[in-house]
Amino acid sequence: MAAFVPQSHYSRPMQVRLSQIAERAGVSVATVSRVLNDKPGVNEATRRAVLGAVDVLGYERPSRLRAKGAGLVGLIVPELENPIFPRFAEAVSVTLAQHGYTPVLCSQRAGGIHEDAYVRTLRNHGVAGIIFVSGIHAIADTDPTRYQELCEAGLPLVLVNGYLDDLKATFIAYEDATSVDLAVGHLAQMGHTRIGLALGQERFTPTIRKRDAFGDAMRRHVDASLTDEALADLQAFTVYTVEGGSTAAHTLLDQGVTGIVCGSDLMALGAIRAARQRGLLVPEQLSVIGSDDSLLVEFTDPSLTTVRQPVTPVANAAAQALLDQIAGEPPATSELLFRPELVVRGSSARAPID
Amino acid sequence: MAAFVPQSHYSRPMQVRLSQIAERAGVSVATVSRVLNDKPGVNEATRRAVLGAVDVLGYERPSRLRAKGAGLVGLIVPELENPIFPRFAEAVSVTLAQHGYTPVLCSQRAGGIHEDAYVRTLRNHGVAGIIFVSGIHAIADTDPTRYQELCEAGLPLVLVNGYLDDLKATFIAYEDATSVDLAVGHLAQMGHTRIGLALGQERFTPTIRKRDAFGDAMRRHVDASLTDEALADLQAFTVYTVEGGSTAAHTLLDQGVTGIVCGSDLMALGAIRAARQRGLLVPEQLSVIGSDDSLLVEFTDPSLTTVRQPVTPVANAAAQALLDQIAGEPPATSELLFRPELVVRGSSARAPID
Repeated sequence: MAAFVPQSHYSRPMQVRLSQIAERAGVSVATVSRVLNDKPGVNEATRRAVLGAVDVLGYERPSRLRAKGAGLVGLIVPELENPIFPRFAEAVSVTLAQHGYTPVLCSQRAGGIHEDAYVRTLRNHGVAGIIFVSGIHAIADTDPTRYQELCEAGLPLVLVNGYLDDLKATFIAYEDATSVDLAVGHLAQMGHTRIGLALGQERFTPTIRKRDAFGDAMRRHVDASLTDEALADLQAFTVYTVEGGSTAAHTLLDQGVTGIVCGSDLMALGAIRAARQRGLLVPEQLSVIGSDDSLLVEFTDPSLTTVRQPVTPVANAAAQALLDQIAGEPPATSELLFRPELVVRGSSARAPID
Repeated sequence: MAAFVPQSHYSRPMQVRLSQIAERAGVSVATVSRVLNDKPGVNEATRRAVLGAVDVLGYERPSRLRAKGAGLVGLIVPELENPIFPRFAEAVSVTLAQHGYTPVLCSQRAGGIHEDAYVRTLRNHGVAGIIFVSGIHAIADTDPTRYQELCEAGLPLVLVNGYLDDLKATFIAYEDATSVDLAVGHLAQMGHTRIGLALGQERFTPTIRKRDAFGDAMRRHVDASLTDEALADLQAFTVYTVEGGSTAAHTLLDQGVTGIVCGSDLMALGAIRAARQRGLLVPEQLSVIGSDDSLLVEFTDPSLTTVRQPVTPVANAAAQALLDQIAGEPPATSELLFRPELVVRGSSARAPID
């Protein structure tokens, strides 16, 4: 036990610490002692529960147990260019750091590394768990086998921005339906009836959810008799970037829309650029609504009306859910959804008079 | 050797791979074989040189050598909110990923973790090296001991955005003097003579370099007889954020400036906000120049004139310098400087007529 140095609680006697860890982990003091001294005869789940309790209680792990990669957590994100992902990474880092964990950041943009390759690397390094953000799990019809295997291996994991029916795992996401309903409702209130929806790739669950919610919202706020065919003309699917927004906006402007609801702030900036290329004024002749509320969009020209996603609460929840699993608790298998809010700025206004 | 599976070059016979690695590492084939089979009798520097050569040549390490934490690199950044840091992290990741390395991202904002604590964590996990961005080494008069110890321990490291005279290590930075000279020269050409400088904390080397370059640039472009006292009135030191820029701009506007050169794009957006609070038009009554060329500043109101920092080349150079050290090459101990360029947009214009 010489290596077992507490980071805090210096005044507490060893026995108190051991019983505190045992209580937290739901095992005997003898088992705690076996794990901390790296003795055999303890199964992996119990071992993880004890080490998780050590971490959660703020003790430093014995050095021989640290060397196995405890304290690292994998964080797989699609890219760092869209400001929503670094914001998410920062917020996850804060929560993890409070419990002694540091993220191994895996950006999928980087050199085209596949998610599966990152997972292999992370497991080689013995990470305590993995948070997936907008990963393969966000593709609606993907095979859940890769995640089932991780669950069966007992690796804690949390899946953000996606949902797979057949997988018993922890899912955390934004309320996509609410996002679209807030944006469509705002435009409808200001007299818009020709409203377009600009989204990224249709294979992603958040895209599908927003697409489906758009139909509901348009029928509720604008015209209950809208046909599926009429709705299809008001939707454009490209990619979630400035260029994707510009392309989608050109398609939708050809359909005569006076307002566009975009799937990201970057798309909204692209839509504004496309409108200006056609000599249209924003917001006088075209209203544009973004999604996310990225760092700088309050400074754009015009300042961007957007649906603010609760990035920090979602990131905190993801980190906490992972820490709970690392501490030995069974994963919550429901989907935890977080509600966005509309932030009205300068890019939306009353519909133009015909 | 069963575990030694090449990722590429499948067709080459084993002996070719071994001799290729030996040649790259500057050791014998027998030594390469000892290292790859994890046999004793090889010193640490040689071991690292061999494993570095394996990585650089694109082979996969034997699994028993991978488990020791090879393939992870520490990346310590001050925060992820300023978009320049995620851009840097993304670019570093690309270069590292091509050589099989993954960054452990340590954001100093996260829960107030100290750089030294991150370094301990990273070393516990056996990272192959560490890249420090705007770390303690950027504080001009800091004690270099913490870095000297890492160098003596043989840990590869690269220091970005700072310089310490007494430390023999690899430094990489932007040409701060050129940044200020480009911005001051641009304003002077448009008739500005009362030009202010808004920077962050004066303890950082980049701040000091910009401050000193400002005096030189003002005397060269505006008035050779400017006294140090007159120059001091034209400088404000706050922090590198929107709020810091706003505060600095109020101070400088009280001094009657018609143009402000800012140390970051966020500061420039704060300066524009401060000018508008006073009823001033940008750029008609005040010109504002940013620094970095962050993702969204071309969309701001007005679009931001800024000094674009070569983030990707600097990040690539930092990653490559670290990979070279990991491969056993001695660290370059000079400072590698990268040249910025002026991007003229809508926030700068001719000086107002009195």
